[in-house]
Amino acid sequence: MNFRNVISILGVLMALNGVFMFLGIPFSMYYDESVNPLLISGSVSVILGVFLWQFFKLKTARQELSKKDGYLVVTFGWITMSLFGMLPFLISGSITTVTDAFFETISGFTTTGASILNDIEAMPKGLLFWRSLTQWIGGMGIIVLTVALVSIIGVGGMQLFVAEAPGISPDKLKPRIRDTAKRLWLIYLGLTLSETVFLMFGGMTFYDAINHSLTTMATGGFSTKNESMAHFESPYIQYVVIVFMFLAGVNFTLTYFGLKFKFKKVWENEEFKAYLSTIVLFTLLTTAGIAFFSEAPYEKAFRDAAFQVVSVITTTGFITADYTAWAHILTVLFFFFMFIGGSSGSTAGGVKIVRHVILFKNSFLEMKRLLHPTSIIPVRLNKKAITEKTTFNVLAFIMIYISIFVFGSIAVSLTGVDFVSTIGAVATSLGNIGPGFGSVGPLENFSHLPDLTKWILAGLMLLGRLELFTVLILFTPYFWKKV
Amino acid sequence: MNFRNVISILGVLMALNGVFMFLGIPFSMYYDESVNPLLISGSVSVILGVFLWQFFKLKTARQELSKKDGYLVVTFGWITMSLFGMLPFLISGSITTVTDAFFETISGFTTTGASILNDIEAMPKGLLFWRSLTQWIGGMGIIVLTVALVSIIGVGGMQLFVAEAPGISPDKLKPRIRDTAKRLWLIYLGLTLSETVFLMFGGMTFYDAINHSLTTMATGGFSTKNESMAHFESPYIQYVVIVFMFLAGVNFTLTYFGLKFKFKKVWENEEFKAYLSTIVLFTLLTTAGIAFFSEAPYEKAFRDAAFQVVSVITTTGFITADYTAWAHILTVLFFFFMFIGGSSGSTAGGVKIVRHVILFKNSFLEMKRLLHPTSIIPVRLNKKAITEKTTFNVLAFIMIYISIFVFGSIAVSLTGVDFVSTIGAVATSLGNIGPGFGSVGPLENFSHLPDLTKWILAGLMLLGRLELFTVLILFTPYFWKKV
Repeated sequence: MNFRNVISILGVLMALNGVFMFLGIPFSMYYDESVNPLLISGSVSVILGVFLWQFFKLKTARQELSKKDGYLVVTFGWITMSLFGMLPFLISGSITTVTDAFFETISGFTTTGASILNDIEAMPKGLLFWRSLTQWIGGMGIIVLTVALVSIIGVGGMQLFVAEAPGISPDKLKPRIRDTAKRLWLIYLGLTLSETVFLMFGGMTFYDAINHSLTTMATGGFSTKNESMAHFESPYIQYVVIVFMFLAGVNFTLTYFGLKFKFKKVWENEEFKAYLSTIVLFTLLTTAGIAFFSEAPYEKAFRDAAFQVVSVITTTGFITADYTAWAHILTVLFFFFMFIGGSSGSTAGGVKIVRHVILFKNSFLEMKRLLHPTSIIPVRLNKKAITEKTTFNVLAFIMIYISIFVFGSIAVSLTGVDFVSTIGAVATSLGNIGPGFGSVGPLENFSHLPDLTKWILAGLMLLGRLELFTVLILFTPYFWKKV
Repeated sequence: MNFRNVISILGVLMALNGVFMFLGIPFSMYYDESVNPLLISGSVSVILGVFLWQFFKLKTARQELSKKDGYLVVTFGWITMSLFGMLPFLISGSITTVTDAFFETISGFTTTGASILNDIEAMPKGLLFWRSLTQWIGGMGIIVLTVALVSIIGVGGMQLFVAEAPGISPDKLKPRIRDTAKRLWLIYLGLTLSETVFLMFGGMTFYDAINHSLTTMATGGFSTKNESMAHFESPYIQYVVIVFMFLAGVNFTLTYFGLKFKFKKVWENEEFKAYLSTIVLFTLLTTAGIAFFSEAPYEKAFRDAAFQVVSVITTTGFITADYTAWAHILTVLFFFFMFIGGSSGSTAGGVKIVRHVILFKNSFLEMKRLLHPTSIIPVRLNKKAITEKTTFNVLAFIMIYISIFVFGSIAVSLTGVDFVSTIGAVATSLGNIGPGFGSVGPLENFSHLPDLTKWILAGLMLLGRLELFTVLILFTPYFWKKV
């Protein structure tokens, strides 16, 4: 490991983060608010970041990141961004405790969207924009990570993503990193701006439109309104958000193919097919549930169902209706939806569809293996056999995910939170979704939780966002052993 | 597949089942009840069973069971036993519907212990004895299955059990089946009788003592009292039951070693160490919880904690206190305890400790594999590397277990049951435990559930008891394909 190199890169991230803070200043000025919080925080971040970058920069040219350095940069990158990203909230006094400010900020950078704000609309507009931007930066970070660091780190879901990318094998990836990252980043930016336009077309102000677009495409779910998307009653606006949440949960490489009219490639992708079918199936099921248990008109039932299903499965967390107030069966369904997650190579968090596909295929094949114990029966994805190593990694990922859910729930309930709120808060934090159940349900927020609980949930958000292994590996003896 | 052979063996099981029914008749006579229900049901079972056995018996001598025949015998064996085992309840009129009678009986044969009886003490004593006996037969069935059919079926947990057995490799097992099965059956019988003596020593009547011993050693949990074991307030009796529940959850081969004073073999067994540590740790944690949240004296807190922890982890399901009325944290803990299960090679159900041991080791090693992608890093159990095939099977088992929990919960909540009761009922049925949460909690029973729900839960009991694969494999195309 090369700590100088790691710190230097963290400095670069810190400085970039500071530059992003300045983007909120025009809004502060337009709405006649103090520019100080963002200006001071941004300046501190840029100055300290540049200093660290330069001071620790290695003299040797072209120093490459080792695998272990990569893990350190990713985990501490997200932590550093959150530590500096919370400064505007603290300096402005709009969030008064470090715990709350850190929770809100890491909930942003991890694209979770769980909030401790009791009155979002009372916040300065410039700060709310920064809050939305943390999610967008987090989403972009995941895309860059997926593309640029996959060859260094090579974690399960990302390996699979690479297998998807056109003609890119992990070996050949490095020379094309810049190209691929740029291409996907352009799609990300393009979709964000398109959504802004579509939302303004439906009557949203530019400010609300850009904020909601930033957090939609990041599958983040921070809103500028206390009632989340329920504030905007226009069916048009709600359908626009449904479509863009759906797009944000698609593998961005597939969106690229789609934009090049290579629909066959999109359609032949098994993860996409499973993603689409899951959403269609569960939307219909939920629509039927709402129509059966309430007197809502069919269009409203369908819209509410589609919105909440897409929102939870893509791990966005916007809300237009309280799914916990629906019938029992729907509550149970939505709890399990939290463990689905979007597509690999998207900004969505959670377990991710491709892992479920492999899981189900493997479970089914295990029965075949029992009947034919001497045959080697691999899982096939997109018509290619995937290695036992990858299948192993996927199963281990899901098992660790569930174990963390279990131990996280025990830890949270030890802080005095009730059963339903506990499992809701843990599932939603680990899956980077946002709203949970009970006292942290869609109509509530996380402010009333004890400080310790908030730190535990913040840790879970980070674990979930960075695909578990990236963080957990730092706690193993293997990582720190010198080779 | 050879259906004649399968039906013939089912006939033998049916006839044996009938003989067991006759064992309840002395109690009916002693307590001046009608002997008809047991006499008629037993006779029908024996006559029909002997007929099927003889009629379908193959003429060729020494016809061996194929693997596929084995799967069919096991699954349909349990179903046949339950279908005929419910006759006494229906004939006597003490259970009025087929749904309830089947639920109660399969809950017995699967050693689950969930009951639909609102007033257990009003039941005829002879029938209650038969009810306890169904659990004991089910427990014995699992032991015989573990030993005798492992070479035919070779399912995960059982493979591991065989690896444990002294000098028995699956290849060498067959000649020794009779010996091993007899030895373990003697331990099972011996422990049951010992417990009866110990319980009578504490003041229980012979009738109550034998009933509770039968259901303790089967890790079943049916009681002759409405309040389950809470009826017996004697600390001595409760401690006796704790000890025997613990023993029932130990691999019977290890108990055999223990009886031969080969304690080193017991102590070196990783599953036993994990089983013991889990129980000690969770008992202490629960004791602390009870002591902290209530004003119970320490001994009472410890006893209540130990009883409920051992009861749930061994999947017995006896109750001396309502764990769902304890603090939030304890409710959360007990929900997760339902997914632990006892040791392989015991009568306990659930996921089983050895699978958790492999799961945790594998999850930890996956991190090492990520850092050293070219090395082959196997999981080691009891100082021996286990094959990738076995690890794969264990991971697949756990994943399928969780998937069935999820889909089972969705199915049950579709029948209109509330969230907490749903996940409690499904977890407890699949894990063969007994009591759940909410409306099926320790102080409640399953009688109020809709019929459809009861059938779903009955199916889950069977799946859980037969280690999932044994039942699920019948639903795959691979099974029915001619080779």
